[in-house]
Amino acid sequence: MAVYTDITDDELATLLADFDLGAAVSFKGIAEGVENSNFLLETETGRYFLTVYEKRVREADLPFFLGLMRWLAQHGFPCATPIADRRGEVLKRMRGKPCALVSYLSGLSVRRPSVAHCREGGQSLAALHLAGAGFPMRRANDLGQAAWAPMFASLTGAADGLKPGLAKAVEGDLELLRAGWPAGLPDGVIHADYFPDNVFFQAGKFAAAFDFYFACTDALAYDVAVALNAWCFEPDGSFNITSARALVGGYESLRPLSGAERAALPILAHGAAMRFFLTRLHDWGATPAGALVKPKDPLEYERKLAVHRSSPDLVLFGAGA
Amino acid sequence: MAVYTDITDDELATLLADFDLGAAVSFKGIAEGVENSNFLLETETGRYFLTVYEKRVREADLPFFLGLMRWLAQHGFPCATPIADRRGEVLKRMRGKPCALVSYLSGLSVRRPSVAHCREGGQSLAALHLAGAGFPMRRANDLGQAAWAPMFASLTGAADGLKPGLAKAVEGDLELLRAGWPAGLPDGVIHADYFPDNVFFQAGKFAAAFDFYFACTDALAYDVAVALNAWCFEPDGSFNITSARALVGGYESLRPLSGAERAALPILAHGAAMRFFLTRLHDWGATPAGALVKPKDPLEYERKLAVHRSSPDLVLFGAGA
Repeated sequence: MAVYTDITDDELATLLADFDLGAAVSFKGIAEGVENSNFLLETETGRYFLTVYEKRVREADLPFFLGLMRWLAQHGFPCATPIADRRGEVLKRMRGKPCALVSYLSGLSVRRPSVAHCREGGQSLAALHLAGAGFPMRRANDLGQAAWAPMFASLTGAADGLKPGLAKAVEGDLELLRAGWPAGLPDGVIHADYFPDNVFFQAGKFAAAFDFYFACTDALAYDVAVALNAWCFEPDGSFNITSARALVGGYESLRPLSGAERAALPILAHGAAMRFFLTRLHDWGATPAGALVKPKDPLEYERKLAVHRSSPDLVLFGAGA
Repeated sequence: MAVYTDITDDELATLLADFDLGAAVSFKGIAEGVENSNFLLETETGRYFLTVYEKRVREADLPFFLGLMRWLAQHGFPCATPIADRRGEVLKRMRGKPCALVSYLSGLSVRRPSVAHCREGGQSLAALHLAGAGFPMRRANDLGQAAWAPMFASLTGAADGLKPGLAKAVEGDLELLRAGWPAGLPDGVIHADYFPDNVFFQAGKFAAAFDFYFACTDALAYDVAVALNAWCFEPDGSFNITSARALVGGYESLRPLSGAERAALPILAHGAAMRFFLTRLHDWGATPAGALVKPKDPLEYERKLAVHRSSPDLVLFGAGA
């Protein structure tokens, strides 16, 4: 949650002068998104989000992200759609920073997904993958397997500070992931951050997905693995097999996994836990004490890493194996 | 701007179960209000704000604030109205903290009020004072003149740190304010924080006022003085007489000032500058480095203090004297 960029009424009026949306009637900074500043904008014609991209998002990646959101919406996947100005531009600027207006989404995120939510989550992820097929742009996963060992090189002290002996265990994981990481799985557009807080529900049904700012081209099954970690662990750290079956079952109701994808799920889930452990460990150290944006606890993903390390087949039970 | 309290979907559903507003369809933390956590809530029946009161607001004061907002709305002054639950309660609790649902307000705050905005601002402040007449509760102004010298006692070092020699000048101001502070002016409900960012405009006209969490019982003309300081200084530190005339003229179009009130405006404005200088100086030192909530610069009000110190009659030009 963060609002880093403060927009004045004059700056807003200048932006809106390029669009056919009428004048602003309401404008509020909202506490969503760690990477960007987000505002809820109501104009004479409707409601929109304004996202101002802060430095963590690379400007060169924005055409991919905005193009993907537009593509997905046009292909029937409910997500925020970038709004083009009168000249057809979606990428705008404010205060020297890139920004975009996107359509408004209703819905609520669930904190603790039920089994039914997990089924909806899995099914909607498959719908995203199917809608993304044919999207012509590519973006490498800069937080993929190849990036983890270099990332960890500067974090060994932080890991041992978190838990004595952790650096050695993580180095073992990294070697196992390097040696066994699967190649040749079906790839395509993945969300890469498909957490419950990036999905809206309405009356228990999937309503929309958002926050596509980690989206990239990678193995589709890796996205399922990210979601298994994010949706199917209980607060006490245990892996909920029933939730996992619902998530994978929901996914396969639209896009059945191949044998190779199913067999790869354990190592993909182990790797997905590594990816979020590493970024959280990095952010944990990088956030000044007293800042209002609380970094997410790296220990949550350290525990998930340990589960995959000690029970590599666990995920397969969720995949109906 | 701040969202301190994080509300889950389950907690929200529990709160809404006490009301006849239907289920939540959208819920967002918004970056408004330094004292409280504010959320924009849309239910099946409409839009509302949820305010969760953080520790800076004294719980014992909430019946005054919520009662006043309800009173003003019922007496035709456009402001957020607390919503009563099925049992008639407006003060609710969440996570052990007091909270309230209030009606939604549309509009935009202006960063740099024009002369026309100042006229609207003054007129709306008089409307607030007239609507507040007869409100049966009282709350002493705990940031009034009697509080300033005790507040400054622990801030002399901070003042000299801000600007060498400032503590001595402020002590001179405090003595002057103590000796000359007017008594017996017409009193009543005042907003006490009537800044442009606590007022919404629509199409250039006053639409609503909010943030009544400093409201109290004090001299009505003191509220005009607070507003003169907040609305009528240019970014370069100069006092805009035209804006001041518009603000006072707008005010007097609904509630003419008495001779005593007009004569007191200079010292009231000097005191109002002191009040905001002191709280900003206090917050400046109390906010940890790196926190996202940037405290407001105490130097802005130090400059206003200096203007009133050197040109005590300046405000009178704005009052048409």
